[in-house]
Amino acid sequence: MKLKPLGDRLIVKAVEEEATTASGIVLPDTAKEKPQKGKVLAVGDGKLDDNGQRQPLDVVEGDEVLYSKYGGTEITVEGEDLLVLRESDVLAKVTG
Amino acid sequence: MKLKPLGDRLIVKAVEEEATTASGIVLPDTAKEKPQKGKVLAVGDGKLDDNGQRQPLDVVEGDEVLYSKYGGTEITVEGEDLLVLRESDVLAKVTG
Amino acid sequence: MKLKPLGDRLIVKAVEEEATTASGIVLPDTAKEKPQKGKVLAVGDGKLDDNGQRQPLDVVEGDEVLYSKYGGTEITVEGEDLLVLRESDVLAKVTG
Amino acid sequence: MKLKPLGDRLIVKAVEEEATTASGIVLPDTAKEKPQKGKVLAVGDGKLDDNGQRQPLDVVEGDEVLYSKYGGTEITVEGEDLLVLRESDVLAKVTG
Amino acid sequence: MKLKPLGDRLIVKAVEEEATTASGIVLPDTAKEKPQKGKVLAVGDGKLDDNGQRQPLDVVEGDEVLYSKYGGTEITVEGEDLLVLRESDVLAKVTG
Amino acid sequence: MKLKPLGDRLIVKAVEEEATTASGIVLPDTAKEKPQKGKVLAVGDGKLDDNGQRQPLDVVEGDEVLYSKYGGTEITVEGEDLLVLRESDVLAKVTG
Amino acid sequence: MKLKPLGDRLIVKAVEEEATTASGIVLPDTAKEKPQKGKVLAVGDGKLDDNGQRQPLDVVEGDEVLYSKYGGTEITVEGEDLLVLRESDVLAKVTG
Repeated sequence: MKLKPLGDRLIVKAVEEEATTASGIVLPDTAKEKPQKGKVLAVGDGKLDDNGQRQPLDVVEGDEVLYSKYGGTEITVEGEDLLVLRESDVLAKVTG
Repeated sequence: MKLKPLGDRLIVKAVEEEATTASGIVLPDTAKEKPQKGKVLAVGDGKLDDNGQRQPLDVVEGDEVLYSKYGGTEITVEGEDLLVLRESDVLAKVTG
Repeated sequence: MKLKPLGDRLIVKAVEEEATTASGIVLPDTAKEKPQKGKVLAVGDGKLDDNGQRQPLDVVEGDEVLYSKYGGTEITVEGEDLLVLRESDVLAKVTG
Repeated sequence: MKLKPLGDRLIVKAVEEEATTASGIVLPDTAKEKPQKGKVLAVGDGKLDDNGQRQPLDVVEGDEVLYSKYGGTEITVEGEDLLVLRESDVLAKVTG
Repeated sequence: MKLKPLGDRLIVKAVEEEATTASGIVLPDTAKEKPQKGKVLAVGDGKLDDNGQRQPLDVVEGDEVLYSKYGGTEITVEGEDLLVLRESDVLAKVTG
Repeated sequence: MKLKPLGDRLIVKAVEEEATTASGIVLPDTAKEKPQKGKVLAVGDGKLDDNGQRQPLDVVEGDEVLYSKYGGTEITVEGEDLLVLRESDVLAKVTG
Repeated sequence: MKLKPLGDRLIVKAVEEEATTASGIVLPDTAKEKPQKGKVLAVGDGKLDDNGQRQPLDVVEGDEVLYSKYGGTEITVEGEDLLVLRESDVLAKVTG
């Protein structure tokens, strides 16, 4: 990955809908704010708290996550459509 | 549960209205912001406070809670309709 | 009471208008934000401050309070109409 | 006084306009946010600061104060029209 | 002065436009937010910071100041038109 | 300079456009928020941080700065058109 | 570079679109908030945190970064079109 996100940001690649049926997670279109599933390609070092301490993210490279799509910024790297998100856009980690 | 919520989030499954009559809690449709009753399936590790300390949630897996429905994000996992909430959306725990 | 409010919330049951004349507190309809009188049925454990310390509420179960009605969420428990409030919705305690 | 205000609130009784000419303070109607003069009947114990310390109010029962009328909540106690204010609504204390 | 401002407030009496030519400070009408010059008649004890410490104001009684007029509350004391301001409304002190 | 700015404010005198060509800095009119170049005539002592410590400004009297013009308040002192700014309006110092 | 950005700001020079194909990063026009790639020419010393400690930026002079274009202020220095940004406008560093 040629990009190192800054602060509390991360870069994800969306996992196509069909793949989700394998792990059972389907994201209904009707949902007001349609969440999306994707793979984490890179994470930032985290924000500094009030005492200047770095707060690492709760997700790491390789995690599969569920996130609200409308917070991110779209980019394309070597033909791949990616999304730059903030950690607060991530709802949950897919563990199973 | 295949999802681990992040930070101060939790995942709940709504309890259908009829079941509520058993425990006596009925949620009037007229209410401006109609609260909902549901079961907690998973909780996050909590947010970091200003000193970088983790603040665990006041609810745990298995709790029955009352929450305002309009804050969450709807997802479906293995055919089950679930809701990803923030702890601040939870009004109370059903104790009896 | 089968509900344990979360954080800085409390559950109150409104005291009907007529009863107020006994203690002399009448809440004029004309008031922009018509305050309401009620009895506290349950209180939360309080919010965590910036240092992760629990801040107990200034009201306890059994107190009679004056509150602004428009902040709460209406629920019905065993046929009783109740209101889930935040402590900041409570204006004063009725002491006499 | 049968009411104990909560946190940083106080209860005042407005002093009628004519009385003000004695102390010389006249509140012009033209003022965008017409301030009002009144007597403090009861004060709260104050808010908690970030370290959980109680911050007492700068006004006490019996003080005469100048306040912006539009912040408060009107109530009537034993036929008296009173106002529940926040300390931040109080502009100044009348000292002379 | 019969009024003691509260917290970070101060009371000023506007200095009429003509007087300003003496010290050379003219406040153009065209300015979007027309600043005003005036004399400080009384100051509050200052706000409490997060640690409950009092933060005294940077201006004292007798100072001449330049302030943005639209933040204050107009009052009249013994026939004098005065303005109750917050310290943050004060742009600068007139030193010469 | 007869004015002492308060807190984190500073007073600047705009440098006319032609002068900029000497140092090479041209501020395009097209820019949404047209920055301006000017000389610092006076600075405040800085704001107090949460612990009541004074935070001096990063600019001093005599510096040449680039600032966004729309945040300031216009005044005229002895016929000179000046601008009262907040430090956060200053984009950069001109060093060469 | 004749400009020293203030606080958490930085100055970048946009890298023209064609150049990006070499490193593979293409910024789709369709993106709601079209990110831009550019070279860092100068950085500020960073903001002060609540304890008055300087928080240095995560980017340094010479870095290549990806940023959201709409937050900055356009200037021209010696004929070069540059952009003054805040660190929070920077999405990621280009590392490869």
